[in-house]
Amino acid sequence: MDAASFILFGATGDLAKRKIFPALYNLYLDQKLPAQFTVFGLGRRQWDDHIFKANVAQSIHSFSRKKVEDPAQLEKFLESFQFCILDANKQEDYVKLRTMIETREQQLGAAPNRMFYLSVGPEFFEMIAEHIDQSGLGSESGWKRFVIEKPFGHDLQSARQLNRKLNETFKEEEIFRIDHYLGKPMVQRLEVLQQKNPVLQALWTNRYIANIQITANETVGVEERSGYYDKTGAVRDMFQNHMLQLLMMLTAHFPNNSTTEAVRFKKKMVMEAVQPLHPHQVSNQVIRGQYNSGSINGEPVTSYREEPGIANDSMNDTFIAAKLEIDDYFWRGVPFYIRTGKRLKEKSTRIVIEFKEPIKQSTGADIPVPNLLVFEIAPDESIFFQLNARDPIYKEQIKPLFLDFQVDSKDLPEAYENLIHDAWHGDATFFAHWDEVELSWKWVQPILDAFAANTVPLHLYEAGSFGPKQSDELLNKDGFHWWFDEPTLEQETLITERNEEKTYV
Amino acid sequence: MDAASFILFGATGDLAKRKIFPALYNLYLDQKLPAQFTVFGLGRRQWDDHIFKANVAQSIHSFSRKKVEDPAQLEKFLESFQFCILDANKQEDYVKLRTMIETREQQLGAAPNRMFYLSVGPEFFEMIAEHIDQSGLGSESGWKRFVIEKPFGHDLQSARQLNRKLNETFKEEEIFRIDHYLGKPMVQRLEVLQQKNPVLQALWTNRYIANIQITANETVGVEERSGYYDKTGAVRDMFQNHMLQLLMMLTAHFPNNSTTEAVRFKKKMVMEAVQPLHPHQVSNQVIRGQYNSGSINGEPVTSYREEPGIANDSMNDTFIAAKLEIDDYFWRGVPFYIRTGKRLKEKSTRIVIEFKEPIKQSTGADIPVPNLLVFEIAPDESIFFQLNARDPIYKEQIKPLFLDFQVDSKDLPEAYENLIHDAWHGDATFFAHWDEVELSWKWVQPILDAFAANTVPLHLYEAGSFGPKQSDELLNKDGFHWWFDEPTLEQETLITERNEEKTYV
Repeated sequence: MDAASFILFGATGDLAKRKIFPALYNLYLDQKLPAQFTVFGLGRRQWDDHIFKANVAQSIHSFSRKKVEDPAQLEKFLESFQFCILDANKQEDYVKLRTMIETREQQLGAAPNRMFYLSVGPEFFEMIAEHIDQSGLGSESGWKRFVIEKPFGHDLQSARQLNRKLNETFKEEEIFRIDHYLGKPMVQRLEVLQQKNPVLQALWTNRYIANIQITANETVGVEERSGYYDKTGAVRDMFQNHMLQLLMMLTAHFPNNSTTEAVRFKKKMVMEAVQPLHPHQVSNQVIRGQYNSGSINGEPVTSYREEPGIANDSMNDTFIAAKLEIDDYFWRGVPFYIRTGKRLKEKSTRIVIEFKEPIKQSTGADIPVPNLLVFEIAPDESIFFQLNARDPIYKEQIKPLFLDFQVDSKDLPEAYENLIHDAWHGDATFFAHWDEVELSWKWVQPILDAFAANTVPLHLYEAGSFGPKQSDELLNKDGFHWWFDEPTLEQETLITERNEEKTYV
Repeated sequence: MDAASFILFGATGDLAKRKIFPALYNLYLDQKLPAQFTVFGLGRRQWDDHIFKANVAQSIHSFSRKKVEDPAQLEKFLESFQFCILDANKQEDYVKLRTMIETREQQLGAAPNRMFYLSVGPEFFEMIAEHIDQSGLGSESGWKRFVIEKPFGHDLQSARQLNRKLNETFKEEEIFRIDHYLGKPMVQRLEVLQQKNPVLQALWTNRYIANIQITANETVGVEERSGYYDKTGAVRDMFQNHMLQLLMMLTAHFPNNSTTEAVRFKKKMVMEAVQPLHPHQVSNQVIRGQYNSGSINGEPVTSYREEPGIANDSMNDTFIAAKLEIDDYFWRGVPFYIRTGKRLKEKSTRIVIEFKEPIKQSTGADIPVPNLLVFEIAPDESIFFQLNARDPIYKEQIKPLFLDFQVDSKDLPEAYENLIHDAWHGDATFFAHWDEVELSWKWVQPILDAFAANTVPLHLYEAGSFGPKQSDELLNKDGFHWWFDEPTLEQETLITERNEEKTYV
């Protein structure tokens, strides 16, 4: 594994504290970092190495997945941390940083491999890239990688502009675009699950699948991000990136033992096959929502427009549901329903594959519940098949039976551990390629236009509901409904039993 | 539900004590018996009603699935029990019984529906049927049913003879042939599982299935039944009935909402399609074994030939493994491996469906374990898929992942409860039709002949093993092996975790 410098812009920020330092520490404990590495923390604050290390230690104590069991080991880990005061605007600060990095590399006798990790707002991306270039920080005798996290642009045009700009300094293969949903273990399983399992491959087609539902519900509201969020909305914040990435990971037909290139190529093929939305279709296939007041878990919550920092006539989308179709051999005729929103009844990210009825029933009287294959991604991870079986006691009844796999997630690496590790290895499989990002923007652009032009209604929905009723109607008119908004008795039992088992562990 | 008399031959015997009385009691608690019923216990012993009821009560206290919580309720249950001393040879005893039954029917004002349950050796079947006929016990104004349990004959010829004889008194639809494997909840699930689940239907074909393994391993030896067993052997005792019934239940393609007739017709079609064994094929497709000394769970056990009552040159089969093929559209090309035996390493009855490899691998290096669908029937019931997934920590590794359904069997009716209930309802779905019995005998007859003529070797196997190594070779030569004889680490873990969960409940 290559020795390298991890150069962290935004080292005093919240993401660094909550995710990045703990991820590095866990990788270190799992011996997944190289023997020699240095983390250069960058920020405008007047910190020194000592303060920086204390902050890193504090972050680890608070947020690490694995607890600190050996303080000496943590001390040793912290020896690799240095702080450099840096104003992202100032060329001289980059020169100073370069000297610092080169000194350290010489001390260690390490190759000048450098991973630039931008834990900063997107408005800094271009500027930092330019300064890295001009200061000669991107050494030519080692590798360099540029790790950024969404938003990648604000619409199709701005995304293209940003990318063009970054490409002046970094080649596509040097840019690692984090979509942290791609770092989640359950999402990472999807590739191998369909590659290595004949029973899933047999079913993974429009011949058997009636529809697919992808949900990412949040209970939180706009929180402290009103300034950002009111200019962004659910389409840009969640749909264009996370939701379409889930769609690609689920529906791409990955070759066996697929390479990074193959995975990304197949994902791109999916996005190219997603039927484009014509402007006049947006109002039929897309539901725009915004939360009104209501209550969540018994607590009253305010409406979006009454949130601090939000205009009382904001038309911003805090919810979107859309119907998509993929026009390829495997998926033609299978509707995909995708929704995400804030201030919904429960936090849940899941994919539900609903299968077609086995045989046309002669009477409607006893149609059993369709088979489902469910991937629960958050808050807990699990996979299950819902099948129909004879009730062993009341034998005339058909009842669901669940084949269930539960992940004990406390033992699993978090998304950022996976992603930092992969970037360090130069493995871009679970990072978004520019082609995917561009195609995703291209697909959502008619929605953004329609929202901006107000040609699509904005439906207010009660906080603590599952979004506007128009979201239900989107499925109802095709003869379907969102699964798990109203779990069946048996589904409730499954969930309860799982939770009970957990309390024993 | 029809009021009826339950007329139990062999009421002082072991099966009545261990299975039938407890089954009746549990059906009573679940309100699955009619409001009016009478159990007439028959036997040669000089019991009276009082002694009989005391014995029934004792049996329930010892063997009932549900514990006795309300002694008054048990008392009320026992009011329906009467004893009649009967020598199965004596016509006058049947006449006396008839008077007793008619008196009771008149007292209750109940219709003369009569279920004759023969919990006696097969040598009494014909005689009892004949006496029932001659004594006029089988009233013509109510229904009559004749419930018997295997063995139904000793070979094809004797089975046909027995059936011909019984048909003089009872019509086929009045004869309920118990194969208690058909009463097991997991076996009863098979019908609906394949009917109502498109995901299983999609997979239920030679397109995806590599082979199917049906195992019924026992740890016990010949026990106290040496006289019976040494003339019977594994083929007659287990294979001709239980094993072939499992095969039929698994492979028949049941129509939706299938009637009793349809289920039995489809099972018959399977048995008709099982490729007959030509005498010269027996030695290639059938492995005959007999246990030698060895140890089970650390306890030394004797060889079959040293068991009390067994001749020291006995050639009896205590183990059989066979390869079968079903020549129909769905199953052509799928080998079925079936085995059963005594004194094996563990008690386990299971069906394993092994799926074909998804895609021909370019190198043999990383072929994952094939997908399995497993139905565990005994000692515990469960269903699981074994799939392949990326290890979430060591991501270059592919590891099995289990989608698992466990039955909490303490809540489930036992086989005899299911069967007595169904017979009482006149539902013969889970009873063996004569056609199935006859076809099964027909299929095993060349094996019986070859064993009798000693044209097939008898392989001694160590007690506590999984049978003779020739049983392994039967699969190995086709490129397969018996699953779960040597569970993988992951399979072990699955089993261990299940057991741990149970201890919490």
